[in-house]
Amino acid sequence: MKHVYFFGNGKADGRADMKNLLGGKGANLAEMTSLGIPVPPGFTITTDVCTLYYENNGHLPEELDGQVRDSILQTEAIMGTKFGDPENPLLFSVRSGARMSMPGMMETVLNIGLTSKTIPGFIAKTNNPRFVYDSYRRLIMMYSDVVMEKAAGIEPKEGKGIRHRLESILKTFKESKGYTSDVDLNGDDWKAISDSFKDEIKSALGSEFPDDPYDQLWGGVKAVFSSWNGKRAISYRRIEGIPGEWGTAVNVQTMVFGNTGDDSATGVAFTRNPATGENLFFGEWLQNAQGEDVVAGTRTPNPLNLATKTDGNKESLSLEEFLPDVYKALDGYRTKLENHYRDMQDVEFTIEEGRLWMLQTRSGKRNGPAAIKMAVDMKNEGLINKEEAILRVKPSQLDELLHPMIDPAAELTIDALAKGLPAGPGGAKGQIVFTADDAEAWANDGKTVILLREETSPEDVHGMHVAAAILTAKGGMTSHAALVARGWGKCCIVGCAALQIDVDSKEVHINGQTFKEGDWFTLNGTAGKIYSGELPLLDANPEHNQEYAQLMTWADEVRTLKVRTNADRPEDAAQARGFGAQGIGLCRTEHMFFDPERILAVRKMILAGSQEERRSAVMELLPFQRDDFYGILAAMEGLPVTVRFLDPPLHEFMPQTDEQIDELAGELGITSSVIRTRMGNLHEFNPMLGHRGCRLGVAYPEITEMQSRAIFEATAKLTKEGKNVHPEVMIPLVGTFTEYTNQEKIVRATAAAVMEEQSIEFEFMVGTMIELPRAALTADQIAEHAEFFSFGTNDLTQTTYGFSRDDIGGFLPYYIAEGILDHDPFESLDVTGVGQLVKMGVEKGRSVRKNLKIGICGEHGGDPASIDFCHKTGLDYVSCSPFRVPVARLAAAHAVLNDK
Amino acid sequence: MKHVYFFGNGKADGRADMKNLLGGKGANLAEMTSLGIPVPPGFTITTDVCTLYYENNGHLPEELDGQVRDSILQTEAIMGTKFGDPENPLLFSVRSGARMSMPGMMETVLNIGLTSKTIPGFIAKTNNPRFVYDSYRRLIMMYSDVVMEKAAGIEPKEGKGIRHRLESILKTFKESKGYTSDVDLNGDDWKAISDSFKDEIKSALGSEFPDDPYDQLWGGVKAVFSSWNGKRAISYRRIEGIPGEWGTAVNVQTMVFGNTGDDSATGVAFTRNPATGENLFFGEWLQNAQGEDVVAGTRTPNPLNLATKTDGNKESLSLEEFLPDVYKALDGYRTKLENHYRDMQDVEFTIEEGRLWMLQTRSGKRNGPAAIKMAVDMKNEGLINKEEAILRVKPSQLDELLHPMIDPAAELTIDALAKGLPAGPGGAKGQIVFTADDAEAWANDGKTVILLREETSPEDVHGMHVAAAILTAKGGMTSHAALVARGWGKCCIVGCAALQIDVDSKEVHINGQTFKEGDWFTLNGTAGKIYSGELPLLDANPEHNQEYAQLMTWADEVRTLKVRTNADRPEDAAQARGFGAQGIGLCRTEHMFFDPERILAVRKMILAGSQEERRSAVMELLPFQRDDFYGILAAMEGLPVTVRFLDPPLHEFMPQTDEQIDELAGELGITSSVIRTRMGNLHEFNPMLGHRGCRLGVAYPEITEMQSRAIFEATAKLTKEGKNVHPEVMIPLVGTFTEYTNQEKIVRATAAAVMEEQSIEFEFMVGTMIELPRAALTADQIAEHAEFFSFGTNDLTQTTYGFSRDDIGGFLPYYIAEGILDHDPFESLDVTGVGQLVKMGVEKGRSVRKNLKIGICGEHGGDPASIDFCHKTGLDYVSCSPFRVPVARLAAAHAVLNDK
Repeated sequence: MKHVYFFGNGKADGRADMKNLLGGKGANLAEMTSLGIPVPPGFTITTDVCTLYYENNGHLPEELDGQVRDSILQTEAIMGTKFGDPENPLLFSVRSGARMSMPGMMETVLNIGLTSKTIPGFIAKTNNPRFVYDSYRRLIMMYSDVVMEKAAGIEPKEGKGIRHRLESILKTFKESKGYTSDVDLNGDDWKAISDSFKDEIKSALGSEFPDDPYDQLWGGVKAVFSSWNGKRAISYRRIEGIPGEWGTAVNVQTMVFGNTGDDSATGVAFTRNPATGENLFFGEWLQNAQGEDVVAGTRTPNPLNLATKTDGNKESLSLEEFLPDVYKALDGYRTKLENHYRDMQDVEFTIEEGRLWMLQTRSGKRNGPAAIKMAVDMKNEGLINKEEAILRVKPSQLDELLHPMIDPAAELTIDALAKGLPAGPGGAKGQIVFTADDAEAWANDGKTVILLREETSPEDVHGMHVAAAILTAKGGMTSHAALVARGWGKCCIVGCAALQIDVDSKEVHINGQTFKEGDWFTLNGTAGKIYSGELPLLDANPEHNQEYAQLMTWADEVRTLKVRTNADRPEDAAQARGFGAQGIGLCRTEHMFFDPERILAVRKMILAGSQEERRSAVMELLPFQRDDFYGILAAMEGLPVTVRFLDPPLHEFMPQTDEQIDELAGELGITSSVIRTRMGNLHEFNPMLGHRGCRLGVAYPEITEMQSRAIFEATAKLTKEGKNVHPEVMIPLVGTFTEYTNQEKIVRATAAAVMEEQSIEFEFMVGTMIELPRAALTADQIAEHAEFFSFGTNDLTQTTYGFSRDDIGGFLPYYIAEGILDHDPFESLDVTGVGQLVKMGVEKGRSVRKNLKIGICGEHGGDPASIDFCHKTGLDYVSCSPFRVPVARLAAAHAVLNDK
Repeated sequence: MKHVYFFGNGKADGRADMKNLLGGKGANLAEMTSLGIPVPPGFTITTDVCTLYYENNGHLPEELDGQVRDSILQTEAIMGTKFGDPENPLLFSVRSGARMSMPGMMETVLNIGLTSKTIPGFIAKTNNPRFVYDSYRRLIMMYSDVVMEKAAGIEPKEGKGIRHRLESILKTFKESKGYTSDVDLNGDDWKAISDSFKDEIKSALGSEFPDDPYDQLWGGVKAVFSSWNGKRAISYRRIEGIPGEWGTAVNVQTMVFGNTGDDSATGVAFTRNPATGENLFFGEWLQNAQGEDVVAGTRTPNPLNLATKTDGNKESLSLEEFLPDVYKALDGYRTKLENHYRDMQDVEFTIEEGRLWMLQTRSGKRNGPAAIKMAVDMKNEGLINKEEAILRVKPSQLDELLHPMIDPAAELTIDALAKGLPAGPGGAKGQIVFTADDAEAWANDGKTVILLREETSPEDVHGMHVAAAILTAKGGMTSHAALVARGWGKCCIVGCAALQIDVDSKEVHINGQTFKEGDWFTLNGTAGKIYSGELPLLDANPEHNQEYAQLMTWADEVRTLKVRTNADRPEDAAQARGFGAQGIGLCRTEHMFFDPERILAVRKMILAGSQEERRSAVMELLPFQRDDFYGILAAMEGLPVTVRFLDPPLHEFMPQTDEQIDELAGELGITSSVIRTRMGNLHEFNPMLGHRGCRLGVAYPEITEMQSRAIFEATAKLTKEGKNVHPEVMIPLVGTFTEYTNQEKIVRATAAAVMEEQSIEFEFMVGTMIELPRAALTADQIAEHAEFFSFGTNDLTQTTYGFSRDDIGGFLPYYIAEGILDHDPFESLDVTGVGQLVKMGVEKGRSVRKNLKIGICGEHGGDPASIDFCHKTGLDYVSCSPFRVPVARLAAAHAVLNDK
């Protein structure tokens, strides 16, 4: 079996389409090599070996050794150096490379092959002892941390591991010598440091730092495989939905050095701007540095070219200016790669003594606006077609365009505290916290937080995920923080050097001011500006974005699923209509009851001693409800509006405190004890399964009558005004068709009465929510009467799983963490279980009423995976919150294209 | 269309098998006529006419009039009299007659045809003005109540209607004359009374009492049809499960009179004793009386014959002694009817001036023991076969044999307060109440009540239904109270003349003692004895009953479904085994946790701050649980025992009061606030859908481990003792197979560990409850791992309907009353909805595991209709409470026979 795929000197065993076997990095290294692009030669150990490694308890297959040695021979032949050779040693990097990119989540070891035997020859060859010992101490630090500490089974506390100890030694050494920076250390210093490192490793980890190149190589390979199931990698995969079975490949590649002197450099670049989508070659580079220096964000890099300089870095020397020939070659590869891959590429390069090497290419991550612009531009450039353009934008990326921004008027009145790099667009505000754990804890308490870090690392991912925004003192636009935030479309500012963070005291000093944990900040992630306090945020407004408009037009041409919105107020309805909503799929009526003017009548209704009393209280609500429906129906003129009858249990409308109860008693002229008795009667052990939904209307038909009358009187009025309105009356929580017919009768009788009273005809529909398993199971019986179905998948998920959404906090996080559930079924529809009921509801419903209109109005209506399911299942529409409407429109188009 | 079926003089249009069209009474009158048994001629108006009557808003079909007149002509020809004839008038009775008997639930009018024109002729013919005017006033009373008051749309309060007014007139008249009894009134008196009645009717109801015979006839017919949808009839149909669409027939039959003098009589008889099943002709009769006098229980009747005289009525003259020839003829008809119908018959007869007329025959109601005895006797007599014998006993009737009885030892020590007729067997105790409404209200408050009434009427049915026992001052073994109680197998004593009931003051005086509402009585319904206070009740013991044993043997030969029991304690297990249980289908383990010795460890476990602390607290429970399982497995040696892991949410185990919390804090050496905080964390909004079932074991695997270990250590010990035990470990509330496999792994690992430790092998199974819709929907995935399924239909009903069993009180009674649900889905499985999930679970489960063992352990496991469904669906067993085991065995046999 072939475990090792060689690449080098224009020839490669692999290809770009072998990502599953070689990982993304390995496949693309092979492809670049075949394209004639200069890639340091090396080889990829396949993901199959990773699988075998886990199947065999951490043992590698026997035949691997010979295949690796063959590939090393080929590499040596190209480079004219030899692995472990005292005279002219070949050094390797060992890097992970999974099918999908998992930046920073797995291990890397550089400079493998430096040993006591090869160091002298390497010094002789480079004539640079300082560089060689610096490389050696880097190898020791990385290897002891990545390979040895883990192999020893030691799980150090954060910041207390071997790397920390070695860094302390370095710090102490520098202090003893009076050095202020690493550049002050000479070759002898680094040699002494390396010796101290090896002593510390022996005492701390109980084993010698390996002095054999093959020991180093195999240690590195195994460390990469092991890191596939490391804690951070698992956590990242869970968030990104990457299956654990995929495994990682290992790329072993000839070391090239960007840190051998002033004509060496390293950098990363994007073939187009990943933040804006502009068709400009965009990147960052560092002179005399190794690759991780750019990615880690420890030094602020220079711009790639003149065209992409900004106000913040216009003084910095661009690569285009510094090494024009190299830049020209690089720009040529940019064109070659983008035309070849037909997508924006994210590349890494190293310049060793003036010679350019390409280390990686991959499809570049981009934020939402950039993704849209690139997709539309590339279609217009003829690089891709319309369908590809649609598929290039993840529906969730639209969210970014729909993000709130700081009210510009308010922003004008206040000076920014500081400025950083605009790594994630949109505005956000929150209370500042200084560690990822704090961010998580505060967020769990329901607080909105902004995570402040010197720089972020993969260990911070959980805190970054819950934060409203991320703010770092160090790092560039391709730093970890920027990369991660861009992937999530989160507001993010990086490289804000003005921040002086003191994690221990949980304070940050900015230009002489001190802020503590819990203080409010507001960030403008689009401009990179940081403000103290809370500034007002404005709703998103994507209409001015022409590429967005173009993309959505294409999406609308393709999709077959209609998209409605869930809205209870005319303003929301109008906004959703602006976002492209084709009607209201769920207008909840209970929110209308909480208005202070109305709640008294609601409470009177609840406390009524007789049906007459209750009817008179209910009818007090009629004018209010009629006005509500008038506004909403008017805002949605020409489009259908589905109004759901009162749903929550009545106790939700009762006062909470003793004081409020006494006040209510006074207003109604009854004793508090009467109210308390009624509240006691209303108490339920499981209100989710109690007296709510249509069970209210069945027991108190006057409520149904009032709500019907409000809808139809509003309809009559609008019809008389010449407006074309389409009310759809929805009966909630039906479990048996007899509940439906009981309520339908009242609705139709009321409609007839209103038509008679007002001497006018109007059209309307009556239908029901399918949100109980029994409703899905008996959908044929229900559809004999109901004109439409709307799946209430929130409640359907609750009852199908037996999960109370309010109570799963006790075990759902654990369920996800342990892989018992692969996702939160309230976020994305459980296709396996709940999905069966939805399918059954559709099939049974349409079996008796062919033209049954069917939609979904649970929160899944805005989730792309769920929308895909809805499309496949033959629904007519999805309904979601106004801000999800564009997302749903695009997801509906994706569903069509993915179904082809 | 033929609407009217004539019968008379040995010829009839109808037959016994035409019950759907003619009702039970009409079909059997036709059948008896054809058998040559003397039946007063008349005709039956079909149930189809009832349907037409309701379809046409209370109008009868036009062609009915002619058909009725034809039948009247035929009747006149036979009787030699004429309807409405002044000289020789024919009188009719008008009676209801539905497909199934609904005693007393619908209307009857007698003596139709008495008018100012016919009275003189009838007096001349009978030479008995007193009898004629008595008959006339009876007609007036009945007709004004049954027809006129209802036609006027008046809904009087209980006891305040026209009948009450007329009775007041009669009472006043008697007082004014100094009469003490009705027999004191002569013909003139009754004539005067009749005139007063008619005046009162005119003033109270606003219309004249009709003086035309056809007006009377049609009024009576319509009244019967209307009464089909009267409140009591609807309520009775709901309890008995009779569909409202059936409708009633109307029987119009020549009046024969049991009250024309001393050689007239009326009676009811059973071809065998309905209380004991003995093969003796059993009945009651009254001299010079009309039929309703026997049924209404207003006079205590005489025994039918010498053989059935009791200590209580040995002084009374039997019909056998009084009119031996008539008795002999009657006894002949008894044999003829029983042989013809092959079942015990309940007949009514009237003797008019020495001539015997049969007025009705029908299959007689009987209590459980009687049903069993008759079924077994008739099989042994060759009258029916084994299968018929099995089907003759309703499974629910076995309940009566399983009823508790008063501890005979205790009964010996106390004198009875009073004695009555033993109308319903078994012992019962409760607090006395005096009205049906009070019975219902007290029962709703969770109290056990005995309903005391002068006599019961159909208006009392709701109170009788909820009462533990019924006790009346008047009436015989065929009175309303006795009939209804027998139908329900309820403890009942009637005709206890010692009771002096004062409903207004809610007191009863018995032999000089006074008892008030709420005082405790204990009844021996088998002996008819009433005791003051609470006597201990003993469990039922059907084993001594040979016919029962025979019947159960037959049932066991026929059934294919196994019957297990739900039992948590060795005593219960042993008892259930005595009842024929073939294993334990559900052994709940949480009840074991409440023992005072154990609850502290349980609470320590809940309050544990770390996994180690929790593990140590959990392991304190191990010895207790091991002993529990040892006892249960030993009691069920040779039979399977399904043990369910801990199921309820943990908060259920925490203390309730502040005092208990402080005490617990003291015992554990922690502060009360720690306990309160933890309890706060445990609080759930919908605990039914919260952290319970296997979700506990997933989060706290040490609980699963401890419970597994307890089961397997007990198994190992018993195995070593040479006992053959079959534990089946059941994981509750599984919604996804990953939950199952998570728990199964712990179970199997623990079993392996115990086998290793104890150096012994034993067998066991691991399976799961299917009690969430998602479990049924993904049963194929689960069955790949689980060895058995047990449907937990209680929870499955809750989640499928979205009904919390604890909270449906707010609307379920209304749902049943309004016909939105036709039964409580927690009592009898909802085959339409929940049943689909059960079927799906069975099909999907067996699709991947052909030999999957499947049972049901919800409370439906003891419900005959649900058992029928389980049989049809291919389940292997049902499991129910010990006392329901015999019921389930018989129901399982019925399921086989009904499925043929």
